[in-house]
Parts: sequence; C-alpha cells; structure tokens
Amino acid sequence: MLVLITYDVSTSSESGAKRLRQVAKICERYGQRVQNSVFECYIDNSQYVMVKNDLKKVIKVESDSLRFYQIGNKYKNKVEHIGITLGFDMEDPLIF
Amino acid sequence: MLVLITYDVSTSSESGAKRLRQVAKICERYGQRVQNSVFECYIDNSQYVMVKNDLKKVIKVESDSLRFYQIGNKYKNKVEHIGITLGFDMEDPLIF
Repeated sequence: MLVLITYDVSTSSESGAKRLRQVAKICERYGQRVQNSVFECYIDNSQYVMVKNDLKKVIKVESDSLRFYQIGNKYKNKVEHIGITLGFDMEDPLIF
Repeated sequence: MLVLITYDVSTSSESGAKRLRQVAKICERYGQRVQNSVFECYIDNSQYVMVKNDLKKVIKVESDSLRFYQIGNKYKNKVEHIGITLGFDMEDPLIF
C-alpha cells in the first residue's frame, strides 16, 4: 500500500539538524522523497509498523511532528502533482 | 472528502517568500495546517477544483511543487500522528 510520511523537525538546535538527516535517511529506506519533508512509501503492514518504530526512536516528540497517511493500494488517481518534481517512480508513474 | 495538500516553494528569492505566504493563505481558506507545508482540507469536488486553480495562479511551476492526495471520506483510521501538533480539529478528532 502507499503510505505518505510527512514531517517537521525542529532545527533550532544542532541536534535538530541531525534528527532531520536521520528521519530522511530512515524514510529513504522505505520509500521515495517527493518533496523536502514528504515521502511516499510503497510498504506492507509490517513495514509500516517498522518505519513508525524506527522514526519514533529518532524524533523528539515535544518538538518534532510526524504524520502518516495510508493512501491504500488504489492510489493512481488519488495523487496529483503540479510543478517541479523531485522523485522518480519506484513502481509506476504516479506523476501525470 | 479529506484532501491533503503538501508543497515546497523555493524561497531563494524575495518573490519566493511572497509565494510561500500566498500558498499558505489559500490553503487556510480550504483547510487546516497540520505541519509547516502540509494542509488537511475537508472539501467537495468543486472546492477541490477551485483550490487547485487558486494555487496554480500563485506558484512558479519551474521551481515550486504542489502535491494533492485524496484520502477520501473514511479517513479516521488512515491518519496517524506522532509528536507535537499544530492543527486543531475542524470536524472531529483526527489525532489519536
């Protein structure tokens, strides 16, 4: 299924910049970056549990924010894009 | 239906900073900000067309990026949050 991960990491401190890099690195293991702090992950339920646990270990809950959106398996016509693209398509073209 | 709007606006120029404010202002008319550049909008199909048109008039397609995700009407257990929250719940608690 397609899961969208969006995040805000507070980078007001040096440790925040480090957390930001770590969050991106973890998300890169599970999916593709489509915007600065937005990743699209094609994962199953067990991977979904794993990515949440991995990310929970890294962020500071009192200052950082993670959101997960389960778009599901039928995602092709649920996603639209306007403007410059970052990502490439791991499975098939999501970008019209 | 719940539509997620995520965006990256290039702020390398002064006009970029202005576009960023304009994009946020437009999104605020249709929904609630849940992260810095992530909005959740509870809108119908015609409003969905309108918000896309409004945003298209503002961004620079060669440097900015807009993504729209139709989460649908049954969104309650499709959205998870970890960490600090920005938003308030316009309809009912999305945040568990």
